[in-house]
Amino acid sequence: MPEPSKVAGNHETVTKFFQRGLSSFPAQAKLGTLARKPYDLTADQALSPGRIGAYQCHAAGFDLLYATQRLDDQVLDALQELADEAGAVDQFLLMKKGAVLNRIEGFESEKRQVLHTSCRDIFSGIPYEPQATGQATEELKKLEGFLAQLDDGTLVNERGEQFTDLLHVGIGGSDLGPRAIYLALAAYKKQNRRVHFVSNVDPDDVAGVLHGLDLARTLVNVVSKSGTTLETLTNEALIRRAYREAGLDPKSHFLAVTGKGSPMDNPEAYLRSFYMFDYIGGRYSATSMVGAVMLGFALGYGQLREFLQGANAMDLAAEEREIRKNPPLLLALLGIWNHNFLGCETVAILPYSQALHRFAAHLQQCDMESNGKSIDRKGRPLAVQSGPIVWGEPGTNGQHAFYQLIHQGTPVVPVEFIGFRESQYGKDLRVEKTTSQEKLVANLLAQALALAVGQRHDNPNKVFQGNRPSVIMLADRLTPAVMGALLALYEAKVVFQGFVWNINSFDQEGVQLGKKLANRLLDHLVAVGEDSGYTGEGDAPGWDLLKAAGITGKKTGCG
Amino acid sequence: MPEPSKVAGNHETVTKFFQRGLSSFPAQAKLGTLARKPYDLTADQALSPGRIGAYQCHAAGFDLLYATQRLDDQVLDALQELADEAGAVDQFLLMKKGAVLNRIEGFESEKRQVLHTSCRDIFSGIPYEPQATGQATEELKKLEGFLAQLDDGTLVNERGEQFTDLLHVGIGGSDLGPRAIYLALAAYKKQNRRVHFVSNVDPDDVAGVLHGLDLARTLVNVVSKSGTTLETLTNEALIRRAYREAGLDPKSHFLAVTGKGSPMDNPEAYLRSFYMFDYIGGRYSATSMVGAVMLGFALGYGQLREFLQGANAMDLAAEEREIRKNPPLLLALLGIWNHNFLGCETVAILPYSQALHRFAAHLQQCDMESNGKSIDRKGRPLAVQSGPIVWGEPGTNGQHAFYQLIHQGTPVVPVEFIGFRESQYGKDLRVEKTTSQEKLVANLLAQALALAVGQRHDNPNKVFQGNRPSVIMLADRLTPAVMGALLALYEAKVVFQGFVWNINSFDQEGVQLGKKLANRLLDHLVAVGEDSGYTGEGDAPGWDLLKAAGITGKKTGCG
Repeated sequence: MPEPSKVAGNHETVTKFFQRGLSSFPAQAKLGTLARKPYDLTADQALSPGRIGAYQCHAAGFDLLYATQRLDDQVLDALQELADEAGAVDQFLLMKKGAVLNRIEGFESEKRQVLHTSCRDIFSGIPYEPQATGQATEELKKLEGFLAQLDDGTLVNERGEQFTDLLHVGIGGSDLGPRAIYLALAAYKKQNRRVHFVSNVDPDDVAGVLHGLDLARTLVNVVSKSGTTLETLTNEALIRRAYREAGLDPKSHFLAVTGKGSPMDNPEAYLRSFYMFDYIGGRYSATSMVGAVMLGFALGYGQLREFLQGANAMDLAAEEREIRKNPPLLLALLGIWNHNFLGCETVAILPYSQALHRFAAHLQQCDMESNGKSIDRKGRPLAVQSGPIVWGEPGTNGQHAFYQLIHQGTPVVPVEFIGFRESQYGKDLRVEKTTSQEKLVANLLAQALALAVGQRHDNPNKVFQGNRPSVIMLADRLTPAVMGALLALYEAKVVFQGFVWNINSFDQEGVQLGKKLANRLLDHLVAVGEDSGYTGEGDAPGWDLLKAAGITGKKTGCG
Repeated sequence: MPEPSKVAGNHETVTKFFQRGLSSFPAQAKLGTLARKPYDLTADQALSPGRIGAYQCHAAGFDLLYATQRLDDQVLDALQELADEAGAVDQFLLMKKGAVLNRIEGFESEKRQVLHTSCRDIFSGIPYEPQATGQATEELKKLEGFLAQLDDGTLVNERGEQFTDLLHVGIGGSDLGPRAIYLALAAYKKQNRRVHFVSNVDPDDVAGVLHGLDLARTLVNVVSKSGTTLETLTNEALIRRAYREAGLDPKSHFLAVTGKGSPMDNPEAYLRSFYMFDYIGGRYSATSMVGAVMLGFALGYGQLREFLQGANAMDLAAEEREIRKNPPLLLALLGIWNHNFLGCETVAILPYSQALHRFAAHLQQCDMESNGKSIDRKGRPLAVQSGPIVWGEPGTNGQHAFYQLIHQGTPVVPVEFIGFRESQYGKDLRVEKTTSQEKLVANLLAQALALAVGQRHDNPNKVFQGNRPSVIMLADRLTPAVMGALLALYEAKVVFQGFVWNINSFDQEGVQLGKKLANRLLDHLVAVGEDSGYTGEGDAPGWDLLKAAGITGKKTGCG
């Protein structure tokens, strides 16, 4: 990794952006005034053809339709000013070039570069950050060779059979992104290739997945940057035991994706190792080896490249300075308008595609772990709300579930709809004269419309207030390239919002306290279990809570 | 179904509760005052052993620990007054006895009884509502006979083989509850029994599930009360086509769970039909035939009974008038305290059990479709917030994802933790001297502790504000009975909150407008596709949105 000193120019340039956040930009006051009377979507002709036509943004295979937001040109102009005042695009470019953006000025912090974009900056001769992209290219080459060996039968199992299954073991960023992407693209799998996932420390999770798996034909891909993630190591130990019990040598089946020099970087224990680097945070790591090994196994190297190319296309689109032409920046600013100015605490991600059914779970991490912060990049308390609560499930399912609340409930929930004009499998049927895919898209559009315009009625139970904002994102088909673009769209959205709020979107100090307290409770249990006379008394309130929960270190456990 | 006239006594008794809701109860003012200075969990000794010991509630196999809520005895007393003023338990009893609670007084509405509890009120000689329980018992008897035929080989496929798989086809309440419960209890499956689910109108959903299923040994369980749910009928048509293409007769494989007399109540088309009734809403129907056919197939009739018995035990516990002894009522009031008085817009359900990974999705429907309302039971606008936004994912996974925000983000998210002292499979391993199950529970407790007490620190990035409320629900093991109790716990919680807000928690008018607009858009597409000269022009804004989305009725579709 390049030393921070080597990017000193970037360092100073970027530090100037740490001074101010949303609460002190001139555009904030302007937007505050405009928010007193936001655009009324329920008025006659509010959704004119002109508006629908004008409020669109296109890039990297995606169309964003945002006529159903509560804003007009004045608001868009002010949001543009906000983006400019925050130097959103400038910071994005500095990020790509290796600026040390993961830090809190004046306090101990991670002090790292943020280079997830380097993993897909492999298609031009002149990458933004040659060293990081060089490392990415090297790992991809290793992976390409490995996949070729699997394909041509050079690398087979003990019985000379090809590997058909891969068990991906990770948690958090080493699980949610890869899992969401695999499920999204399962329609493009190579024949006789399947991927399974284990993440939770819940022993039933492993047991459930191992049940019915042919271990002999399975590769196990263990993913942990530090090589010390407790959940992942625990699951790995359980799976290694299962291999030994089946008379199989784990060494011939286990792969490692980890940091160079981590305890897991050990050729004695793994068939192959692939590296991940400190300058890519877990929740941004899906296009690094964290996702690539799994995806390459499932889809083949060619489709993996297409996926990376889609992400790269969106990274390039994110450099556009006009918010009306930059999908991730526009999405970021629409979010800030709804969240900070119209007062909506959450945002719902509603893909009309069953294949995207775990995408919201990935975004929960990518967004909430990045922007769920209360201090700015100089350690000062924020004067405004930062990241929203992100949630969502696929449509049309959600229509039969929680949509009641988003239409008629007391809170307003801004919605981000995602849809596709064509299905993946192409297996469809006309029922009542339309195809399922047409029903799917028609429902998506109808929901956006209903939320926006509402309905007047004499029966108060049939009244819809309307004025509930949404944005519609459409692509032709959910292919590997489109999935890459969608992933990068949201990564960039999150990063842009962090720039405007002036927060560090790249650390996660908030997960430390729980971890520390859990270890202390486990130490109690171990000490009590060892019958050394230790009773835990006096170490309140942890011990009291354990006792109240009926967990005493003696009765528990089902080993 | 008993006619409303037959329960006239109940009708009048219950109507008196329609007059007033939270905003006009005397306890509201008292709670408002108390909320100005809620209990400080970060103070020294705030979590004393005495408090932890006192703030517990036990019933039906569950322990609720709520010392980590921001309240004291004064608040609890005022919440008790609120429950009494709302007649929460009285209304619950009237509901069980068949009062017509699904209605808006003075306006056209569904005017139905609410009798999901009758499905499990089958263990006493004197059910609350004999007619409904009689119908439930009759359907169970039919199911028992059917399952016995599957077991003893009387009922087999065309080739004389036993059925091994069941494909459950439904959406919303006919899908989310059954799916969550099946996944929760998959560890208890009978040998050679598997269940699969299809819900989304997305054609890729069916294609993905059918891929790799042995249709010959599969039963298809189609679930729709009205027998007209478009998504379900579309999926059924796709699956019937697959059967015919495989040379199999759908009639020998398809089961129906539907309302008596619905278009699906047709012995010509189905091997067996099981009935559901108007007095049970979809989101409350998991213990009716909607869940029972699937669960009976998977677990056998005996374990299905245990599941119902667990639910019944919680229904009985919900009759207790002291909130400190009634888990669902207590949970409901803690929710109201956090939502209406401390101003939290959402609630997170965080089970420390991978088996419960779809339970939050079920609750999203059960809670948000029930209580996402803006008018009271006399059609008047609400003066307070009604149902919260519900979301969540299993721990420990979430700890590596969105927990950053709940610890250090700007919004406060009340948490409902769910955990178990023992695992389901009993396959566990000691790593670093503790079992996975111990790690799981220790993490749950540590999170509750960290959220409550927070942490002071010189580095602002390591500061945790604390005072973030949670409740901990624990049972010994996630068995069928415990799952039944957990389901009923939340059903009753939702119903109790609706009683306090004085809203109709049993209708869903808010889903109608989107449905209507979707049909209009589909009519456009059909008309344009028929080349009759219809262009759609002039029917703004729907048509304009379709055009902007690039959906024109000619190019779309992949049939």
